[in-house]
Amino acid sequence: MAAKQARRPGEFELIERYFRPLAADPGAFGLGDDAALYRQRPNEDLVVSADMIAEGVHFFPDDPPASIARKALRVNLSDLAAKGAAPFGYLLSLALPGDWTEAWVRGFAAGLRSDQARYGVTLLGGDTIRAAGGLSISVTVIGRVPKGRMVLRSGARAADIVCVSGTVGDAALGLRLRQGSLQPVAGTGQLLGRYLLPRPRVALAPVLRRHATSAMDVSDGLVGDLAHICEVSGVGAEVDLAAVPLSAAARRLAASDPALIPLILNGGDDYEILATVRKLSLGRFVASAKAVGVAVTPIGRIVRGRGPPVVMDPGGHPVSLTGHSHTHF
Amino acid sequence: MAAKQARRPGEFELIERYFRPLAADPGAFGLGDDAALYRQRPNEDLVVSADMIAEGVHFFPDDPPASIARKALRVNLSDLAAKGAAPFGYLLSLALPGDWTEAWVRGFAAGLRSDQARYGVTLLGGDTIRAAGGLSISVTVIGRVPKGRMVLRSGARAADIVCVSGTVGDAALGLRLRQGSLQPVAGTGQLLGRYLLPRPRVALAPVLRRHATSAMDVSDGLVGDLAHICEVSGVGAEVDLAAVPLSAAARRLAASDPALIPLILNGGDDYEILATVRKLSLGRFVASAKAVGVAVTPIGRIVRGRGPPVVMDPGGHPVSLTGHSHTHF
Repeated sequence: MAAKQARRPGEFELIERYFRPLAADPGAFGLGDDAALYRQRPNEDLVVSADMIAEGVHFFPDDPPASIARKALRVNLSDLAAKGAAPFGYLLSLALPGDWTEAWVRGFAAGLRSDQARYGVTLLGGDTIRAAGGLSISVTVIGRVPKGRMVLRSGARAADIVCVSGTVGDAALGLRLRQGSLQPVAGTGQLLGRYLLPRPRVALAPVLRRHATSAMDVSDGLVGDLAHICEVSGVGAEVDLAAVPLSAAARRLAASDPALIPLILNGGDDYEILATVRKLSLGRFVASAKAVGVAVTPIGRIVRGRGPPVVMDPGGHPVSLTGHSHTHF
Repeated sequence: MAAKQARRPGEFELIERYFRPLAADPGAFGLGDDAALYRQRPNEDLVVSADMIAEGVHFFPDDPPASIARKALRVNLSDLAAKGAAPFGYLLSLALPGDWTEAWVRGFAAGLRSDQARYGVTLLGGDTIRAAGGLSISVTVIGRVPKGRMVLRSGARAADIVCVSGTVGDAALGLRLRQGSLQPVAGTGQLLGRYLLPRPRVALAPVLRRHATSAMDVSDGLVGDLAHICEVSGVGAEVDLAAVPLSAAARRLAASDPALIPLILNGGDDYEILATVRKLSLGRFVASAKAVGVAVTPIGRIVRGRGPPVVMDPGGHPVSLTGHSHTHF
């Protein structure tokens, strides 16, 4: 955050200037009440999720405030998308460090505004506090799903096909590039972008409701997150390394240094969707996803038995994945 | 937090050991999915609110972890109570500082467990992260209210009677005692307790639905919060200083130092309920509140016109309230 400290507005002024304009839903009462009202519709369930991001853990303090705001919102939208839910609104708790500036808050609110328009969500409430430590942002997102149609992690069955959206490992590589522990090659600018600003697969939600037997978003690494699906579904999984979709930049980096493969498979912040579908549905799933602008790729299969997923190289041998699943903890 | 750092569990172990047992509702999926499911009931609206508390702002780092947990939950339950809503569940985002210990988390979870039983709420989801700064806790609480019956801030009308539950100013005095800027007298232990652990007036919710024309919880100070009701209701208010309910300890402190009166009227953290009722309902409101174990006291009246509340001394002269409404910002 910038060092200059002009006269700064108080909490109520901040809310009035920057956050109240984001609270368009009548149930938010312009942030002028103690709580928001959500009027239920018939035949829908609600899906709620909360994720927190903090300076030095999920973003760099000098990231643009609009990007930080959008990341805080998007990591939550990603969870809802994986559940087949349409996002409706969110509550925001913002802990500002001592050296916050009004310009920073203005940029932060502008980031929220642009993503509210993009994803059709509205601010419902929250809290703004001053905290002794660094910046942290907690978002709780609320979405709707037709009654009984939430997509769970627990529905994967033997012989289902494991699919993933987009490309995997880009954000983890982007973070290493940002930290300087990886040398840039052609196309790595895109990897930096993937770390800075996730692309939640909101458009995929209705497709998942129709076709997925299980789904989750990949935030802690492809293999570790697939292990969660296996565990709660009571199954195992095999992943074909050669089938895992990589961006051109990731492919180039992995070709020059195969030691990056475990990072690509276990690195966090992809915010892609991992889903299982019945073998018979695969064609329709891929086509329906394509129709909403999302590439999904079959990368393996669910198998009987319990245990962590096994990744196979093109010769049919298990790939050793040193290091554990990424965690933001 | 304690300094000793034994081998500490990872995020998933923490969740498994301490938080998963708190997630009793089937819609929480034992915290094993990306989001929680809330199955709607007919003829209810949902009321949602989020509040964040941080070390050094809302509590002291050496407060017992169970108290910190209960405070984080209770400040949110207080918002719901003021809206006439019955709390159902909550999402918790916990940012742990670098020196956290497992014993601390165990105590924190124990505090949540005891308040879950007391208030009939369940953990629905959330996030646990490590943060560079101090401890902060964000809670989003979800409650139910019969369709169309949420109590708003905006319903106060001229000639309504202004009431407040319990006693006012205790927590603000307790904070000053804790900080050492106020000398203890007989009974001040209770004031320290009021600061450490709010008592949300959850039992009052159905009584407010039946009788209140407006209500809010008093978190930023009696007069400042009444000003919010006046502003959104488009009215003014008069408060009789002599009618404001004070605890015996607060009364003793104010008698020995009248300069404490503005602190009592403007100090934060009361977590009492401020409500307006029609003159004709006052008797039934007070009796119904008493029947659920809550004392409510008429302290003034709503008047025509707009502007901040005026506090009158027993001679009918306006009391000067130096200093502004308390804020946690």
